[in-house]
Amino acid sequence: MRLPDWIEAFLPHPATAYAGDDDRMALAIELARQNVRRETGGPFAAAIFDTTTRRLVSVGVNLVALHGCSVAHAETLAIMLAQRRLGTHDLARPGLSPHELATSAAPCAMCLGAIPWSGVRRVVCGARDEDIRAVGFDEGDKPPGWAKKLQARGITVIEDVRRAEAAEILREYVLRGGLLYNSRTIP
Amino acid sequence: MRLPDWIEAFLPHPATAYAGDDDRMALAIELARQNVRRETGGPFAAAIFDTTTRRLVSVGVNLVALHGCSVAHAETLAIMLAQRRLGTHDLARPGLSPHELATSAAPCAMCLGAIPWSGVRRVVCGARDEDIRAVGFDEGDKPPGWAKKLQARGITVIEDVRRAEAAEILREYVLRGGLLYNSRTIP
Repeated sequence: MRLPDWIEAFLPHPATAYAGDDDRMALAIELARQNVRRETGGPFAAAIFDTTTRRLVSVGVNLVALHGCSVAHAETLAIMLAQRRLGTHDLARPGLSPHELATSAAPCAMCLGAIPWSGVRRVVCGARDEDIRAVGFDEGDKPPGWAKKLQARGITVIEDVRRAEAAEILREYVLRGGLLYNSRTIP
Repeated sequence: MRLPDWIEAFLPHPATAYAGDDDRMALAIELARQNVRRETGGPFAAAIFDTTTRRLVSVGVNLVALHGCSVAHAETLAIMLAQRRLGTHDLARPGLSPHELATSAAPCAMCLGAIPWSGVRRVVCGARDEDIRAVGFDEGDKPPGWAKKLQARGITVIEDVRRAEAAEILREYVLRGGLLYNSRTIP
């Protein structure tokens, strides 16, 4: 599950420190914007950070159409790539410093379900569920109070970071005629 | 995301027809049993069938620990491999015959969220959520009435097919000292 070639050239130097939520979300949003403009996928991107070093560990962008794979969402790819890099299925394994996921838009039902299994201890979201639904994407059947449910598992959730900027990319994608690959008419 | 080598040799001839739910679940359960006994992963397997030809399209087994990847559940792998084989992210694309997922145990929150995006039109489950939780695995925060919610999306759900046999494999795994990779103490 390779990322598009433009990403490696696009990312800042690996030693770059991302001081806080705003910097981390800015990267996720810029990757989502580039994924739309370079036409490699849907208007979603995610990044995982080591919260001790503040460095980037992995990124993901939506590649559903490019890879012909409905599982290839930004969050699942970022999780898989961080785990491959660290050689473990558990980013909270004893001995590792805590990891955090920044995602340009609130996770869909699948990615939400993937978060507790991944070991990330903090999730930072840009656009809200309703911003995503407003442009025609389906978020799936998320349990009511999903953020509180993650928090009950010890996973901190921060919402609305650069929300307006993140939501703008969703609209840009649709205005460009992007594929709403998850929309299926419910009978 | 390669499947273990034993699977190819283990599967019946590709022209084999799987007449109904019982045959399809029998295959999923046998793959789960083999995955436990050959120690390649957790006690879960899934298979996708073309409901017109009744042939097997793909299989998946739990490979979380083997691949160091928390997304590598049986259902997500079966979905990804079926989509790769058919060259599309949507197994319900016009022109394809309907596809069905048989899973040895009810899907966790992540795999449940993955099902509507996959295009499968029917889901057949062996062990229930409570059978899985009884041995110590976490199913995640599934929305209440999840089967009805899939059905509202036009996805038929059949439960309790060979349930006792499927649940027995979960117990066998735990008795053998298998890793409960999703269990994290909730603070």
